[in-house]
Amino acid sequence: MLTIAVDAMGGDNAPACVIEGTVQALQESGNRFEIVLIGQSDKVEPLLAQHDVSSLNLRFLHAPEVVTMEDVPAIAVKTKQQSSLVKGLQLCKAKKAHAFVSAGNTGAQMAASLFILGRIPGVLRPTIYAYFPRLGEGLTNIVDVGANMDCKPENLVQFAEMLTIYQRYGAGIEKPLTGLLNIGEEEGKGSETLKQAYKLLKNAHDKGKIDFIGNIEGHDILKGHATIVVCDGLVGNTILKFGESIPQFLGTQLKQSMEKLLASGQMDQSAAKITSGMFKDMFEPFDVEKFGGVPFLGVDGISIVGHGRSTSRAIKNMIYMAEHMIEKRVNEHIAEVLTEE
Amino acid sequence: MLTIAVDAMGGDNAPACVIEGTVQALQESGNRFEIVLIGQSDKVEPLLAQHDVSSLNLRFLHAPEVVTMEDVPAIAVKTKQQSSLVKGLQLCKAKKAHAFVSAGNTGAQMAASLFILGRIPGVLRPTIYAYFPRLGEGLTNIVDVGANMDCKPENLVQFAEMLTIYQRYGAGIEKPLTGLLNIGEEEGKGSETLKQAYKLLKNAHDKGKIDFIGNIEGHDILKGHATIVVCDGLVGNTILKFGESIPQFLGTQLKQSMEKLLASGQMDQSAAKITSGMFKDMFEPFDVEKFGGVPFLGVDGISIVGHGRSTSRAIKNMIYMAEHMIEKRVNEHIAEVLTEE
Repeated sequence: MLTIAVDAMGGDNAPACVIEGTVQALQESGNRFEIVLIGQSDKVEPLLAQHDVSSLNLRFLHAPEVVTMEDVPAIAVKTKQQSSLVKGLQLCKAKKAHAFVSAGNTGAQMAASLFILGRIPGVLRPTIYAYFPRLGEGLTNIVDVGANMDCKPENLVQFAEMLTIYQRYGAGIEKPLTGLLNIGEEEGKGSETLKQAYKLLKNAHDKGKIDFIGNIEGHDILKGHATIVVCDGLVGNTILKFGESIPQFLGTQLKQSMEKLLASGQMDQSAAKITSGMFKDMFEPFDVEKFGGVPFLGVDGISIVGHGRSTSRAIKNMIYMAEHMIEKRVNEHIAEVLTEE
Repeated sequence: MLTIAVDAMGGDNAPACVIEGTVQALQESGNRFEIVLIGQSDKVEPLLAQHDVSSLNLRFLHAPEVVTMEDVPAIAVKTKQQSSLVKGLQLCKAKKAHAFVSAGNTGAQMAASLFILGRIPGVLRPTIYAYFPRLGEGLTNIVDVGANMDCKPENLVQFAEMLTIYQRYGAGIEKPLTGLLNIGEEEGKGSETLKQAYKLLKNAHDKGKIDFIGNIEGHDILKGHATIVVCDGLVGNTILKFGESIPQFLGTQLKQSMEKLLASGQMDQSAAKITSGMFKDMFEPFDVEKFGGVPFLGVDGISIVGHGRSTSRAIKNMIYMAEHMIEKRVNEHIAEVLTEE
């Protein structure tokens, strides 16, 4: 049976939401896997007592320390050895767990995952991607979204290769299409790094490692021309955070115009309710929580990172994602492809 | 009297829209300036004949060649010496016009402006910015949006300095605030280039050249914490194009949910009309056309570039912007600030 370690202390709503998500995952799946919940006993055990966990494949492991959002990643990893973050990843390293899931400090999780689990052989730099909505079915993944700055062309190509494997095996996308984010579509556009990356991506395409569709631009992301958008971490991080801020911005605009229409009597309360509902639906594709989390790609183990705002549903989905990553042997496939250069 | 050269052949709707915008600007302003309209006589003159231009300060200058959107900038500048683009900028160089306005091939206009007008003394690299909406009053400018890739720290600082001058003198913003786009707020975040840029921006702040508020992230752009957002051309270009694609994406979502509500009878036609109007208002801040265009900052002359989709209103506003740039002596102020390093 698979064992998944879950960080009870990670996220804005921890530990309550994490416990709920964990219980839901075990109940919904019929105890399909075992979960080791890791955290401070005085915080976690009283909340666990509110659930009927006797029939669940659930173990609790006490970790006296907590890595907070304010902790500096590289320092936290070294000084907080008794934290749920470090203990969870050590379980993976010792093969006592198959995967680790957390909605805590992303930088610290990245640093700890690298430090404790190491890299898959052949991987130059592990990476993180993010989900983006698109016109039509499915989702687009953007990689990298902040783990790597100043990416070299060979880094960008590996990101595409790793995400292609994840999409093929983990997400069941038969033919993931990779686009290189650039300032124009034509070959030869952009910086020297991008020009070189274009050549290497074409080369990877010719070897059958990826399906490369060429350069794409900012306006192509939501159109969904590519399922994989490759870029430097600064670009990806900016687009990700910019995208996340759009619902709030437009929501403020909408509220103002709705209040005017209500005040002038042009709109009644029931119409306002329908309109608000439509608005909510419209932004549903930008709801990051429903995606759960993402695995660090390239780490020699399974470490899934969630948004700080993760709800219990997000935690549950992250646990399922961990299970999926293990069963589909995504990391084994990455190792195969990256070592056959 | 000021003379403004206008490229009749630039833009998707040229020359008709350009002629209309030019006529409107002269009529509305009461012939406050003189316009030299430049283009192919067989295309422009029949359209001009449809307007009563006898009372307007308008001259026509024939240019047999046209730089198209497909032209390669560096080549077009050299081979199409008889184009409206080259002839218009040459008028500026010869002091026969004070400014040039075009909605044509942006890359070619940038290349030709640099080639013909040169740089303001002290400017390392001229740049282009773009307008972004924000919560509350005013607008945010992002610089650079595609003219410069692989920016050095000193380039980023000059972009901030030039745009600060433009906002102070050209846009009447008393205290423009500059933010450095990064992956986190804390000093010390990001690549070596960004760390160094942070230091130089702080230095420029201490000298009173800019008001630097530190690092900002993607989600701060629409919040309007800064009026000037500084970043590399790839990042700015991507955010700009991504932002432009949002109305279409969300509009498609909205249409689908509205059609469902109409079909099920939950919404009637009059409510649908009100809702459509509200959503139109909501996206109005993303309407790039109302801003007219932007000047190339750092070029030793005034060369205003518009969006290819420019309407007559956009052309008119670009002409006003040119007038404003001349009167407020923006370039003279840039030269002063950049040479007193």
